[in-house]
Amino acid sequence: MNKITIGVIGAGRIGKIHADNLLRHPHARIAAISDLYAGAELEAWAAERGIGLLAQDSAEIINHPEIDAVFICSSTDTHVPLIKQAAQAGKHIFCEKPISMDIGQTEEALAAVRQAGVKLQVGFNRRFDHNFRRVREHVAGGAIGEPHIIKITSRDPGPPPKEYIERSGGLFMDMAIHDFDMARYVSGSEVVEVYAQGSVLIDPVFAECGDIDTALITLRFANGALGVIDNSRRAVYGYDQRVEVFGSKGSVATANDHPNTAVISTAEGIAYDKPLHFFLERYAQAYVEEAQQFIDSLLSGAPVPVSGEDGLQAERIALAAKLSCKLQRAVKLSELDELRREYAPI
Amino acid sequence: MNKITIGVIGAGRIGKIHADNLLRHPHARIAAISDLYAGAELEAWAAERGIGLLAQDSAEIINHPEIDAVFICSSTDTHVPLIKQAAQAGKHIFCEKPISMDIGQTEEALAAVRQAGVKLQVGFNRRFDHNFRRVREHVAGGAIGEPHIIKITSRDPGPPPKEYIERSGGLFMDMAIHDFDMARYVSGSEVVEVYAQGSVLIDPVFAECGDIDTALITLRFANGALGVIDNSRRAVYGYDQRVEVFGSKGSVATANDHPNTAVISTAEGIAYDKPLHFFLERYAQAYVEEAQQFIDSLLSGAPVPVSGEDGLQAERIALAAKLSCKLQRAVKLSELDELRREYAPI
Amino acid sequence: MNKITIGVIGAGRIGKIHADNLLRHPHARIAAISDLYAGAELEAWAAERGIGLLAQDSAEIINHPEIDAVFICSSTDTHVPLIKQAAQAGKHIFCEKPISMDIGQTEEALAAVRQAGVKLQVGFNRRFDHNFRRVREHVAGGAIGEPHIIKITSRDPGPPPKEYIERSGGLFMDMAIHDFDMARYVSGSEVVEVYAQGSVLIDPVFAECGDIDTALITLRFANGALGVIDNSRRAVYGYDQRVEVFGSKGSVATANDHPNTAVISTAEGIAYDKPLHFFLERYAQAYVEEAQQFIDSLLSGAPVPVSGEDGLQAERIALAAKLSCKLQRAVKLSELDELRREYAPI
Amino acid sequence: MNKITIGVIGAGRIGKIHADNLLRHPHARIAAISDLYAGAELEAWAAERGIGLLAQDSAEIINHPEIDAVFICSSTDTHVPLIKQAAQAGKHIFCEKPISMDIGQTEEALAAVRQAGVKLQVGFNRRFDHNFRRVREHVAGGAIGEPHIIKITSRDPGPPPKEYIERSGGLFMDMAIHDFDMARYVSGSEVVEVYAQGSVLIDPVFAECGDIDTALITLRFANGALGVIDNSRRAVYGYDQRVEVFGSKGSVATANDHPNTAVISTAEGIAYDKPLHFFLERYAQAYVEEAQQFIDSLLSGAPVPVSGEDGLQAERIALAAKLSCKLQRAVKLSELDELRREYAPI
Repeated sequence: MNKITIGVIGAGRIGKIHADNLLRHPHARIAAISDLYAGAELEAWAAERGIGLLAQDSAEIINHPEIDAVFICSSTDTHVPLIKQAAQAGKHIFCEKPISMDIGQTEEALAAVRQAGVKLQVGFNRRFDHNFRRVREHVAGGAIGEPHIIKITSRDPGPPPKEYIERSGGLFMDMAIHDFDMARYVSGSEVVEVYAQGSVLIDPVFAECGDIDTALITLRFANGALGVIDNSRRAVYGYDQRVEVFGSKGSVATANDHPNTAVISTAEGIAYDKPLHFFLERYAQAYVEEAQQFIDSLLSGAPVPVSGEDGLQAERIALAAKLSCKLQRAVKLSELDELRREYAPI
Repeated sequence: MNKITIGVIGAGRIGKIHADNLLRHPHARIAAISDLYAGAELEAWAAERGIGLLAQDSAEIINHPEIDAVFICSSTDTHVPLIKQAAQAGKHIFCEKPISMDIGQTEEALAAVRQAGVKLQVGFNRRFDHNFRRVREHVAGGAIGEPHIIKITSRDPGPPPKEYIERSGGLFMDMAIHDFDMARYVSGSEVVEVYAQGSVLIDPVFAECGDIDTALITLRFANGALGVIDNSRRAVYGYDQRVEVFGSKGSVATANDHPNTAVISTAEGIAYDKPLHFFLERYAQAYVEEAQQFIDSLLSGAPVPVSGEDGLQAERIALAAKLSCKLQRAVKLSELDELRREYAPI
Repeated sequence: MNKITIGVIGAGRIGKIHADNLLRHPHARIAAISDLYAGAELEAWAAERGIGLLAQDSAEIINHPEIDAVFICSSTDTHVPLIKQAAQAGKHIFCEKPISMDIGQTEEALAAVRQAGVKLQVGFNRRFDHNFRRVREHVAGGAIGEPHIIKITSRDPGPPPKEYIERSGGLFMDMAIHDFDMARYVSGSEVVEVYAQGSVLIDPVFAECGDIDTALITLRFANGALGVIDNSRRAVYGYDQRVEVFGSKGSVATANDHPNTAVISTAEGIAYDKPLHFFLERYAQAYVEEAQQFIDSLLSGAPVPVSGEDGLQAERIALAAKLSCKLQRAVKLSELDELRREYAPI
Repeated sequence: MNKITIGVIGAGRIGKIHADNLLRHPHARIAAISDLYAGAELEAWAAERGIGLLAQDSAEIINHPEIDAVFICSSTDTHVPLIKQAAQAGKHIFCEKPISMDIGQTEEALAAVRQAGVKLQVGFNRRFDHNFRRVREHVAGGAIGEPHIIKITSRDPGPPPKEYIERSGGLFMDMAIHDFDMARYVSGSEVVEVYAQGSVLIDPVFAECGDIDTALITLRFANGALGVIDNSRRAVYGYDQRVEVFGSKGSVATANDHPNTAVISTAEGIAYDKPLHFFLERYAQAYVEEAQQFIDSLLSGAPVPVSGEDGLQAERIALAAKLSCKLQRAVKLSELDELRREYAPI
């Protein structure tokens, strides 16, 4: 097989990005795309791209005989059933994060994938960012020695609408989950304990939804290293995405990406432009690369770069953070299953 | 017309870049491509991209009834005849820089374009770079007041092979010509005098070819501003492309682009990665944008962003620089035509 | 009074720095200096500076009729008795940090100061650093709105000797106490809760001394803001001292100071020199300014810039951190007095 | 001799700076200071510092039996006669730049110094700046290989008053002379040719005084390297002092010094404070070090770090620049003596 045939499930913003990136990949082609709300606009969009089939029902994708792999880009609550169906149909799977908001269900999905022997890659796109990948390279190459302190800053330029907040699963599962994966990725170590603090400092709507808008999460890693993530739903100066790993032989740290390097000096001071606006701009190339590596691993038989297990671990940390914030104490990952039973549903 | 049909003449490195960028443009399609050395490899390349016609003879492009515009990406000595032919055939023209190495011939080509009433855009891609465009915006918007001093650093990561040097037209016409256009672009003013100094400090092969490898060129602008360009054929740390404009109300300056923002701190010091390697990496997006704006101006009827006149002016400055270096004195642009007669051929 | 007469108690490294700074102050003069180990070397040192009296017994300073104010630079265990004696003798007091390692004793010292009506300034020199002061100015001026997240990085270039560690009071009281004061200073808010995690990752000698070498401390402030301090006893690339305050209208962040701005670019990469080595280099000017402001407030009658209460609050946070690390739970400042009784001595 | 006794001639701004720095030097003492306009204010100033003698007549300094060395900080026109007198009296000499505005007179002064066997250091303070010294170290250590291009930016925050301009000797002799010395210092090579362009772009008062306010000067060095200096009398964003040396193995470049490292990010953009205001702030430490090294070389017998010959060479380059600007052609240093005769007085 030297060309992978893809079906895309869900043609929202992220589904379209994946589709456009796949269309430019020399070894991928898109046979079909499905969306519950498929209409005239989407038809035009698909036609312009020469995508042969536009369906409302995802089953048409999953049962399509030519399709080798599916990209699941629909809403989070559909991920688990779609993964199970696709796995049973023998399709490889790329699934957007998180797999689900319920660890039990995520485990079921992973079991179905294992049983079917298909591949599953989870959409932690930030692992493919040029900055964070360079951090990982330095850490993995031993340049900073043993990691001691991991610091992740992750702040959005502005809060989502109320309807989004209500269904998001909360800051830890929706926003910080990327950072939990990043913590594992750059450190190369597992998280064993979480202590999370949250505040509502930006907009009372978060409190109304039982959510928070500002968080500080500390992590303890298996190797004794300590980590901290700070999240905000609104950095007025733009998307703030930075990582620092400090270790026995030094540190590596990244700055934000900016649209240009121009520095203007006037009588008022020295200034430059704000960071790239949001994730679509900042991670544009990372989306290209994650799709490419998924295709590459299907072609070469190599393991996918972000596994279902990676998806599960990030969800477990997110749940531990949620519980820690609720219980106002540190939560060990080893006590998570017991706490899940005690506090279910959470 | 809402889709422009393009023919590409010359399928070397730069022709292929333009072709790939045009293929992704929603309002452009490539009907044909020609190359003197068209063979099996190029056929495969064209087939993979669905380009219908691959010709050896550029006349097939120019006389192709469906083609609206041509991209001239062949060797510099073919530019002028191809521009004349394309203009006569009523095709719009995108031509790589320089139009020619002979100002008289360039003027003839521009006359043919004017007479035919077609559009001609010259490939000064750096005008579309995100950094330099931001400099131009700041200057044009008045943020730094009247420009007083313009500084351009332009250094290649390594010298070209001898065969290239021999036919390049020399550092001023081949390399600095981009910087002459940049000087006009960022300052918004015309150059009236040039003083150029050259040295052979990197490789004696440049002297053997009657060329130089290091240059310092000072410019005087119509508004009294002063400019300086420094060129080197070998910056061992990578492609060095920076601009600074200093004026009555401040300055704006750019830094190089780097592949990532990671900074590593160890017992040895603080370090980061070298700049993006060379023009293909640094100006990848600028090539996309110059093609896009060419297509856009054909569709909208707006003027092209870089005119044939812009091409001519840069060549005139390059010739003045060449003469200044030879005569070891400043050369006024106003005396150029006289000097051309006296020192022809130069 | 337009010249303050000073007596310095303790002629170790920090006592000598204060003395040299005071000698350059136009409105200060040093009448006497005392040190338990006063000998020939110190005599020469004092003579070279024209300091009239060198004593072994600090009582000679405290009872000296000409002396207006004392600088207490002796070991921490002597601070409280010396403050009490100096206050009773009617001398103004500058005392190095911490006042003591026992909050009860610190409170007694402050009571003596209040009763005597003298002034007491505590040596939190970092408040006078050009970088952190600028952060405070931006926050106090409203430039970043309400603070939401405060981040402090504070890492030493290398660990102290074992003898120092044993008597230091531990990382929280010895090293992080500066950062606790910084957190209050830059945020303009009080800390209400502390959660501290510690590890021994650098040298087992810390564990032998019942101490830690790496810490991550999270703070909750009265206004709902969250803070984090990360400490390490060994940053191999040098002294790392940075602060960031993120708020509703933006953020302000500082970088380290370096000995020069030279950036060297070679075929290997881009590099620059490590930060200023340690506190003597980094805070040289801050020491000058704290002494100057102390003298100024004695002359003008204005309040001292860092009060005894500031010293006490930092100690209370340090104790809460120590207890949090021991109890492995967050500790509220409001429960501190009860916990002190329960866990005394800690 | 382990303490040098100094007399300071000229108690203007720069004379006072040197005096205060010398007063803090452990191996220097000031016996006397002279100023034509010595009055009550200066008396108080000297008394406060314990300087025993304040004279109007510089002869009292030069003939003072205890004085080992003089600092000549009076107006430029007095430098040559004072150097001759001091040399005859057997005093070592520190003289502010330039020695004179007449190369013939400077040569006479140097001859007198040679004959008397005393030492003469010229006040090119920028050689002692932490940034430029680091550049020199990198170049001298071979880190960038052979220098190919030297770039110096030197812009003042604002123009001096008309009275100063009239007597300044012009931009090349007054302002750029520092940069001519810097070019020799960082490159380690001699200048052999100068081409200078000047404009009046800031204030017509410069034209009224026969001077310019903006200059671009190109240099050719003995080793074939090329250099460029850009000067402006008004950078509204503050004192702009940068150097870059580019060579066969890389480059080294400096940025400006800023009063702090705080970066503020808001909805408007990212900003930081302007550079240190002017030479008193930027070169405060450099003044300390040049005086210290002068004292050190008197004590140790080592050569002074900036010789009279260095002063002369910078003046010769300044004169060549002045002639180049007037004649509108490049001027070789080897033709300078002939041109001086032809165009005297210039």
